[in-house]
Amino acid sequence: MRALLAGFEPFDGATVNPSWEAVRLVPGAHAVLLPCVFGAATDRLRAAMLEHGPEVVVCVGQAAGRADVTVERVAINLDDARIPDNAGDQPVDRPVVPGGPAAYFATLPVKACVAAARKAGVPASVSHSAGTFVCNHVFYGLMHLIATEFPQVRGGFVHVPVAPGQVLDQGGPSMPSMPSMPVTMVAEALTAIVTAAGLVHDDLRLTGGSLH
Amino acid sequence: MRALLAGFEPFDGATVNPSWEAVRLVPGAHAVLLPCVFGAATDRLRAAMLEHGPEVVVCVGQAAGRADVTVERVAINLDDARIPDNAGDQPVDRPVVPGGPAAYFATLPVKACVAAARKAGVPASVSHSAGTFVCNHVFYGLMHLIATEFPQVRGGFVHVPVAPGQVLDQGGPSMPSMPSMPVTMVAEALTAIVTAAGLVHDDLRLTGGSLH
Amino acid sequence: MRALLAGFEPFDGATVNPSWEAVRLVPGAHAVLLPCVFGAATDRLRAAMLEHGPEVVVCVGQAAGRADVTVERVAINLDDARIPDNAGDQPVDRPVVPGGPAAYFATLPVKACVAAARKAGVPASVSHSAGTFVCNHVFYGLMHLIATEFPQVRGGFVHVPVAPGQVLDQGGPSMPSMPSMPVTMVAEALTAIVTAAGLVHDDLRLTGGSLH
Amino acid sequence: MRALLAGFEPFDGATVNPSWEAVRLVPGAHAVLLPCVFGAATDRLRAAMLEHGPEVVVCVGQAAGRADVTVERVAINLDDARIPDNAGDQPVDRPVVPGGPAAYFATLPVKACVAAARKAGVPASVSHSAGTFVCNHVFYGLMHLIATEFPQVRGGFVHVPVAPGQVLDQGGPSMPSMPSMPVTMVAEALTAIVTAAGLVHDDLRLTGGSLH
Repeated sequence: MRALLAGFEPFDGATVNPSWEAVRLVPGAHAVLLPCVFGAATDRLRAAMLEHGPEVVVCVGQAAGRADVTVERVAINLDDARIPDNAGDQPVDRPVVPGGPAAYFATLPVKACVAAARKAGVPASVSHSAGTFVCNHVFYGLMHLIATEFPQVRGGFVHVPVAPGQVLDQGGPSMPSMPSMPVTMVAEALTAIVTAAGLVHDDLRLTGGSLH
Repeated sequence: MRALLAGFEPFDGATVNPSWEAVRLVPGAHAVLLPCVFGAATDRLRAAMLEHGPEVVVCVGQAAGRADVTVERVAINLDDARIPDNAGDQPVDRPVVPGGPAAYFATLPVKACVAAARKAGVPASVSHSAGTFVCNHVFYGLMHLIATEFPQVRGGFVHVPVAPGQVLDQGGPSMPSMPSMPVTMVAEALTAIVTAAGLVHDDLRLTGGSLH
Repeated sequence: MRALLAGFEPFDGATVNPSWEAVRLVPGAHAVLLPCVFGAATDRLRAAMLEHGPEVVVCVGQAAGRADVTVERVAINLDDARIPDNAGDQPVDRPVVPGGPAAYFATLPVKACVAAARKAGVPASVSHSAGTFVCNHVFYGLMHLIATEFPQVRGGFVHVPVAPGQVLDQGGPSMPSMPSMPVTMVAEALTAIVTAAGLVHDDLRLTGGSLH
Repeated sequence: MRALLAGFEPFDGATVNPSWEAVRLVPGAHAVLLPCVFGAATDRLRAAMLEHGPEVVVCVGQAAGRADVTVERVAINLDDARIPDNAGDQPVDRPVVPGGPAAYFATLPVKACVAAARKAGVPASVSHSAGTFVCNHVFYGLMHLIATEFPQVRGGFVHVPVAPGQVLDQGGPSMPSMPSMPVTMVAEALTAIVTAAGLVHDDLRLTGGSLH
């Protein structure tokens, strides 16, 4: 199976982005680095898809504050940026694709992906919101590309915790750190997720969901 | 302006549901009590819309753990229940409306609604996930009704914190309580939200959104 | 029973402090406003104790982020300030009282106080740390005064959530608010706590405590 | 420097305790396994101190829900158990040592220990409450032993997050996991802490502390 993994460059003043650090460690997959820029990120992703012809595409982004690897279930047609992207763009309530559907569901088997990450020893769960910043933008863009140009590709998005090195100096000695996860552990989860995406045809029928 | 507010009956073993307690306190609006049952809840809502002919419909549900009133932005076409509903139904990965779009956006001016609640003194924010249980089911059902039968209606969904009385006995004397909000305060927020929904044509262009 | 309640002035740039707003609303008790200043706060408290001759003294402070009213169990002999106090003093690892004991337990019946607040409808719990800023400083100072000058007084400390008005503008429209509680509700809890402190001789033997 | 590290056996139905898994991995230190039993745990610790004659003793326990390694600053003279210990004992408001002081401060250089763990790449912070269960019991017991029998020993307590393997099956596929940390990473922090405890005479004067 040909897999393409995309990670992001650092943003919001950070010097590393664990999504890129981790995707580089996944064996047997192409890794592409995306700019944290509305529009340009999706353009770069499309170029990589044309170049590598993947069967599975998993985009990966950082979710500061989350404690586990989260497999996103749905991308929404909305750009609404709390902070500027790396090119200074800060859209407010703009569609990712004008005229596009309100949302796309991931075509990854999201519950099987979570089960595979957990089986590999890495805490993981399904998430129902990828936010409204560049991560959701790329996720929606990917699913729109699949819907319009690459119908044979299976695709989705995974959010990952920050790396431990990012939370070592976030306050005085008594300030508790936000949750973090080593990038090697994130990479193990991504490896399991990509494998599940290639092997599992129908998603697992696991009872779950969020009450709100 | 004719407004219809819907609240839910208690579920998951609770004896009260703050959504219903609060909607009954909103002056000048019809209030309808929905069963916490997939399918039946939307049927009841449709009947009330036919009966009252509202211009604005706001459905309201409980979100245990949230600390403020949240105006939901998007409903997704997915029923995935962590617990059974009040009729014992527990769907797994079932569409709300087979063949329906992946999602609908609220047609309430969500940022103006948040601003109105805050102006009324009640903490509030926009949320990008209403979960996958009966709340999201009714929210999606409402927006689908609007899209297919009631095109003149403006509609959306608001999640509210639990009431203080629900968290008084959740553990021993040293167990911190989850966040709660008096139902009178929730009702003030809902009143402000309904008013904003009737008065505001275009939503406020406030910088915001979620990073993830 | 003669009761003295102490609240604090605003600090860290805030314009209100819910502790002072709430103590002023408790019927039948003297209320004293303390400066948020190491040393001066305890001096002011001692002067009020000399003036009013209370049988019960409850000092009250703000705990931003907490969702319920917390009755503190233990004061420690440590000033360690993350931010400057209102006079610009920012001690690091300094004892409250040089040569004093490492800690004092509150002599309020803390579990009975929690039970009384809950019975009054207000979420509450016992806390095992009052921090190391001016709140803990005053709490320790109070218990030291009781140990050395006012042996007939029963005393303790209560932390309260921020008021709703303090969290209305803490971010964009999609930024969730931290937990808050109306000051009238806080005042009801304080009234119940002061009453319990006067009536209950031996604390309730309720199973509880914190695992960590 | 002769160091003794103590970890706990599993409790509350768990099959592993990361404190014991991690202390076994610290090079150059004696490791002792403590029962999660009031009284017996301190007896076992005392026996190990007599046997090994350590200069530094660090007891380590699990703190489910915390995201980083926390160096405890103060032990209080209170046993108040939310759940039974492994022998079925569940004390309510009982002193650890009848007639003992209300609290002991750790004699580890707690801020230097946090700085050392962070320098080793592991998120860490100072905590001001070790709870009121067996962890605090052993911490108080250790400091009382030091105060009464082993005046030359430097001692303290460290709480550690749960291991990833403990949170893999805590709910359905959409249930977010609580924070966790690999035990190898915990062991790196403990190694750095023990080293700092042996090398640092006076603690670092770092601005810090908790507001509440």
